[in-house]
Amino acid sequence: MRASDLATDFPTVTLDTPALEAARLMAGNDLPGLIVLGDNGSPCTVLAATQVLRMAVPRYIQDDPTLAGVIDEAAADTFVNGLGGRTVRELLPDETRELPVVPADATLLEIAALMAQVRIPIVAVLGADKRMTGAITADSLLDRVLAT
Amino acid sequence: MRASDLATDFPTVTLDTPALEAARLMAGNDLPGLIVLGDNGSPCTVLAATQVLRMAVPRYIQDDPTLAGVIDEAAADTFVNGLGGRTVRELLPDETRELPVVPADATLLEIAALMAQVRIPIVAVLGADKRMTGAITADSLLDRVLAT
Repeated sequence: MRASDLATDFPTVTLDTPALEAARLMAGNDLPGLIVLGDNGSPCTVLAATQVLRMAVPRYIQDDPTLAGVIDEAAADTFVNGLGGRTVRELLPDETRELPVVPADATLLEIAALMAQVRIPIVAVLGADKRMTGAITADSLLDRVLAT
Repeated sequence: MRASDLATDFPTVTLDTPALEAARLMAGNDLPGLIVLGDNGSPCTVLAATQVLRMAVPRYIQDDPTLAGVIDEAAADTFVNGLGGRTVRELLPDETRELPVVPADATLLEIAALMAQVRIPIVAVLGADKRMTGAITADSLLDRVLAT
């Protein structure tokens, strides 16, 4: 059992993908994050759902979330205002965390060790040309290893 | 639209749940984490999949994941050895992050602001008796707000 046997398709965005499109992709796929491909086409980082929310929700409400309970604006309008016209590049934090990558022949134990070490529950699997061929999540790895 | 309208069942474990059972629950539900209920029955933190892997994979392999590629042991045996006999309490890091909680009448904007502020993509919804009635994930919130 190697990385290539466990890798599955995983939604990706580029740095220039519209922020709203990324948010909809995340929502439609029930995912807490998306893989971001860098300008060279290789996976570079993960866009977390909480990062989308940081841009979608006005700063003064983040500073005091209880304010949101008393302002008279629909969440949908607020989100679209916050995200509209922006790109994934603008959603990412100033210091992004590098997405861990493994070659197609990495063993499950090697992948598990890498995830544990960097504390990121997803790795991208790279083909011979350094392009992403799929991804492996921590739960899919546990699923395979423990045969649930 | 309030927290109680969006909350859904979410798998929970207690501090005394066997580690292997928690790992299987995570794997079987395709989740990157589980909600942990404290000794008083209230939600207290999230057990991350990467935290399970930290216990499942021997330390010397985490320190040098490439070692995993050359050792001759099945990942399943390693995991069961690492997790067997342990509990969720032992999987949690020394400093756990508090799980954010909201009352049943919290607005979606309030929940989004809280998630953005604490950078945790899940909140527990509490009933009048402070017991958890369900949970809301960041992607389900985006799904509802953006109507994907």
